Amino acid sequence: MIRFALFGCGRIGRVHADSIDVHPRAELAWVYDPIESAALEVGKRYGAATAPDVDAAMDDPNVDAVVIASATPTHVDLLTRAARAGKAVLCEKPIDLDIARVDRCWTEIAALNPTVMIGFNRRFDPSFREVRERIAAGDIGRLEQLIIVSRDPAPAPREYIAASGGLFRDMTIHDFDLARFFLGEVVEVYATGANVVADFIADLGDIDSAVTVLRGSDGALCHITNIRRSVFGYDQRLEAFGSDGMLSVENQRPTSVRLSTATQTEAAGEYLNFFLDRYTTAYRAELDHLITAMEKGDQPSPGFSDGREALALADAALESLKTGSTVRLGSP
Amino acid sequence: MIRFALFGCGRIGRVHADSIDVHPRAELAWVYDPIESAALEVGKRYGAATAPDVDAAMDDPNVDAVVIASATPTHVDLLTRAARAGKAVLCEKPIDLDIARVDRCWTEIAALNPTVMIGFNRRFDPSFREVRERIAAGDIGRLEQLIIVSRDPAPAPREYIAASGGLFRDMTIHDFDLARFFLGEVVEVYATGANVVADFIADLGDIDSAVTVLRGSDGALCHITNIRRSVFGYDQRLEAFGSDGMLSVENQRPTSVRLSTATQTEAAGEYLNFFLDRYTTAYRAELDHLITAMEKGDQPSPGFSDGREALALADAALESLKTGSTVRLGSP
Amino acid sequence: MIRFALFGCGRIGRVHADSIDVHPRAELAWVYDPIESAALEVGKRYGAATAPDVDAAMDDPNVDAVVIASATPTHVDLLTRAARAGKAVLCEKPIDLDIARVDRCWTEIAALNPTVMIGFNRRFDPSFREVRERIAAGDIGRLEQLIIVSRDPAPAPREYIAASGGLFRDMTIHDFDLARFFLGEVVEVYATGANVVADFIADLGDIDSAVTVLRGSDGALCHITNIRRSVFGYDQRLEAFGSDGMLSVENQRPTSVRLSTATQTEAAGEYLNFFLDRYTTAYRAELDHLITAMEKGDQPSPGFSDGREALALADAALESLKTGSTVRLGSP
Amino acid sequence: MIRFALFGCGRIGRVHADSIDVHPRAELAWVYDPIESAALEVGKRYGAATAPDVDAAMDDPNVDAVVIASATPTHVDLLTRAARAGKAVLCEKPIDLDIARVDRCWTEIAALNPTVMIGFNRRFDPSFREVRERIAAGDIGRLEQLIIVSRDPAPAPREYIAASGGLFRDMTIHDFDLARFFLGEVVEVYATGANVVADFIADLGDIDSAVTVLRGSDGALCHITNIRRSVFGYDQRLEAFGSDGMLSVENQRPTSVRLSTATQTEAAGEYLNFFLDRYTTAYRAELDHLITAMEKGDQPSPGFSDGREALALADAALESLKTGSTVRLGSP
Repeated sequence: MIRFALFGCGRIGRVHADSIDVHPRAELAWVYDPIESAALEVGKRYGAATAPDVDAAMDDPNVDAVVIASATPTHVDLLTRAARAGKAVLCEKPIDLDIARVDRCWTEIAALNPTVMIGFNRRFDPSFREVRERIAAGDIGRLEQLIIVSRDPAPAPREYIAASGGLFRDMTIHDFDLARFFLGEVVEVYATGANVVADFIADLGDIDSAVTVLRGSDGALCHITNIRRSVFGYDQRLEAFGSDGMLSVENQRPTSVRLSTATQTEAAGEYLNFFLDRYTTAYRAELDHLITAMEKGDQPSPGFSDGREALALADAALESLKTGSTVRLGSP
Repeated sequence: MIRFALFGCGRIGRVHADSIDVHPRAELAWVYDPIESAALEVGKRYGAATAPDVDAAMDDPNVDAVVIASATPTHVDLLTRAARAGKAVLCEKPIDLDIARVDRCWTEIAALNPTVMIGFNRRFDPSFREVRERIAAGDIGRLEQLIIVSRDPAPAPREYIAASGGLFRDMTIHDFDLARFFLGEVVEVYATGANVVADFIADLGDIDSAVTVLRGSDGALCHITNIRRSVFGYDQRLEAFGSDGMLSVENQRPTSVRLSTATQTEAAGEYLNFFLDRYTTAYRAELDHLITAMEKGDQPSPGFSDGREALALADAALESLKTGSTVRLGSP
Repeated sequence: MIRFALFGCGRIGRVHADSIDVHPRAELAWVYDPIESAALEVGKRYGAATAPDVDAAMDDPNVDAVVIASATPTHVDLLTRAARAGKAVLCEKPIDLDIARVDRCWTEIAALNPTVMIGFNRRFDPSFREVRERIAAGDIGRLEQLIIVSRDPAPAPREYIAASGGLFRDMTIHDFDLARFFLGEVVEVYATGANVVADFIADLGDIDSAVTVLRGSDGALCHITNIRRSVFGYDQRLEAFGSDGMLSVENQRPTSVRLSTATQTEAAGEYLNFFLDRYTTAYRAELDHLITAMEKGDQPSPGFSDGREALALADAALESLKTGSTVRLGSP
Repeated sequence: MIRFALFGCGRIGRVHADSIDVHPRAELAWVYDPIESAALEVGKRYGAATAPDVDAAMDDPNVDAVVIASATPTHVDLLTRAARAGKAVLCEKPIDLDIARVDRCWTEIAALNPTVMIGFNRRFDPSFREVRERIAAGDIGRLEQLIIVSRDPAPAPREYIAASGGLFRDMTIHDFDLARFFLGEVVEVYATGANVVADFIADLGDIDSAVTVLRGSDGALCHITNIRRSVFGYDQRLEAFGSDGMLSVENQRPTSVRLSTATQTEAAGEYLNFFLDRYTTAYRAELDHLITAMEKGDQPSPGFSDGREALALADAALESLKTGSTVRLGSP
């Protein structure tokens, strides 16, 4: 039985609490949140103790692993403390908005050889995973082009956007990681964007629509399309085109009902609404991966360096957005 | 070059005139219709002479083949005269509404060994044909279950229905032939029906909704669903289920556009509207089959006996509708 | 908290144990199975006591409800005892293979006004349920034709089939209930069948392929296609055709991946394998319905009479299979 | 009746000959090709005279319009001569590979106010056209993102590629025009490419895989994915994403058959093989548009300037490929 402490009891924290709860070999021992009512609510629901402060949970020798689902600026401190305390870590993305701080964090903990997993949940989506396995099995030959479409149903609130680090570090970062999951290392980044969704996003100096082009080290090209509002719901698709075929991942729906009427045929219903619905299975598989890795003494994946590289791609995209030119990435 | 005379210049006659017109090795020599204006219009459009009477066209030694697309009661006479005149025949379904008359017709012409093809156009639909060829190629093993859905967009007018011989002889007859195309001989028929579409159809003593069950001589079961009104359009589908898989034919649309909005996803447009649109290719392939058979000296298929057997199935369905019991078919 | 006793720890018993386990307001108190090892295994997994005999569980005053998932011949006795003990009941289908015994059971318990739910899980499938709700909301006007396709991936073992009561009482019974869910009362039944899957089924005097036609009291026609082996997996589809449109339920898959290669395009993967996978959500919603009904003091649905009527339809189908004629049903 | 002269009797020339042949108000009077046998073959097939030289056809006062389907370097001369001779022109893309020459051509003929249409056939594809009309009708609100996928089944021969002007001017030019059809004017271009298909293409200094990003004057972003080999066939898709929804165009197949087996479900067949099959309807609609415009005295569209602008985008893409930077376009 792996005993967990959870830091952060907001939306994503609750997802992880739920995954821990249903896992047969995991137990939620502690929850902590600066907003005490949130911690109490989650603690009560899952039968976990509410930690009065970070230390109470972090220093408990019975805790094996921590989940960091708190506000982004707190990630590095919590991650560092957890590593020092010898706990395994599942840290939500991004590690931090400042890549220099990320690198300092690693410098500080590398010698501890910590068990760190970054919460890029999409790698654990059964459909994306199947595509990767089938590429590895040779179903489409050599991967040559990758198309990722990732659209949120509606923009997050102003406060969230303001603290998010911008579209690339907040939203595209998932797609950067997904691209790396398929392409391996990325050697070039180009990005451009627009403001078409909400004035407040432009006011914050951020974009709300973007197209990003990546080149993998083996010549495969990838483009990513993002926007912060899609009226028909969470649009999460992927096409992997290769020398011998193509594998694609379609959107997913809660039911398989279709309607034909006098004005249309075979209209389907709405997609799984947002990440909590679409990626439920992925979040659970992600946690299971960490637990299984801990049991076997393996390093989980994606690890710290994957979190670092996705952030580096986001930074490169931001630079490209400003300069209008391709950014070439050095060796990590 | 095969020279054709066309009897009947209504809707289906024009379809055949068009097929003859675009066929590189066919020519429309004569058209005839008791409504002279119809004959004149079609003749003018396709550069054919308008026959003042049947004889003028039927007795022209330069005519190689006739298309019988006139009113059903005239089919047997025209077919008999054409056979005697040594012309090849493409006769629209049904040969006649009275199977005894059909049998007498054959008795009269059999010795002439006439070249007769019956207009069961669906056998020439590229999708249905592909299914048959793939079954023959073993793609789904042994055929065990066949599901045919055939729904018209809207009921024909009262006068048409009144003269049609009823749902089974007019509409299901196409599905009976299609079933025979896949199953081979049919040994049992069960049918039931309902009146849900239009009062005038009930007033005529006819049904407007039907379910028919067939058993093939090799144990395969088939059911056919018909209705005379489908608000979403002409619904023409088929599923062939076998020991090793299933082949299905979906409906077809003029474009491949799909629309996702706030209330639905991937809604497609309307289907090809009715038989003239859905089966354009089939009608042309049907004519080409006749022409090719004539050139090679082969008998075209489906032939006279196929027209007779489909009618026998319609009669059996009608009997079953009345008795509520399975009708077993003797050897033809 | 509703406390359950589970009778029968086989495949379907475990499904219910799991549903109870994950339900926030339910608890599995007792498990019983004549095969002690099965009971021990399930009891251990879900933290329930293993009952040495039926009485121990049935007479426990702390038990609120029982789930009857044991062999069919034991259903009536357990159901009767539970009703007398004042427990709510979720009884797997069929209540019994002998409708006379079912009727005697009801005679015996009716005065107790028992809370009885029959395990027709498909009514709780989100897709089928959505179709029913949308029909009720008027999305397709008046229901006129219903097509149900229900194919098992592979035949059950000989012993199972031998004790099953035959295809109609064992397999089609789910479809009969589903038909009633949409059509309301059924007034006519016709059925026919064939043996195409496995010799041992014919040897047992049973069929393995069937087509059934139903007529609802309002004139809607329904047909059901069954077979005991589908190489491409569990085939569970439905089409509800109405005066204003059609709602259909497609098969469902664990992922949304599609593959295009040199020989095919957009090939999808296998379907959810069998009822445990396809109807997981349905089984949980079914249990939740019972619990909510108990909490509110409502009768759950489908109830005893629904179990009785589905069996009556199976019996009528069997009679029709033997006579080749439509069977008309009297008022229940 | 519009009388045509056709210059160039290769693959695309024959497409136009066929469109003229089936058009009820058009007639093919002359054909010319420097390879006499090609001209003779096409002339014979469609009943047109074979011109001994360009003049014979161009100077015939009975010729109303010319189709220029000859080698690209001959386009400007033929177009200029036709304009001077007062003939309407349908000129295949590109007008020329050298934009300076294109501009000089226009300078020379502008005063003649010639009727010139450029053969961007995709604008006449019923699916793409429907998307445009539905956008205009407000179905998806404001257009914000456009995704075009355009993949050829197999690379053209070395000689073709060598003379083609490169991927952007030869292949992407269709997508540039399609993008303009939806976006209106394009203000920015970014392009990158790779060599993954065939060594001979790299040897010619050309790329065989490309991703292009465009920005429309109203802020919409577009990306185009091209490759010169797709084993599953001609891949021609489009997604138009807007503030209120999304319209997409799927690939199209000759039949609607799907196959489910033990290893896959609902696999469809191959796509319409290449442009001759996929765009048959488009080519005919294109010709009909020219004829109708001539009859009404309207300028057809796309016109000379559309041909010029698509080439300007191709040139900009090539520049971006070389510099790695966004190219901003001035006013045309």
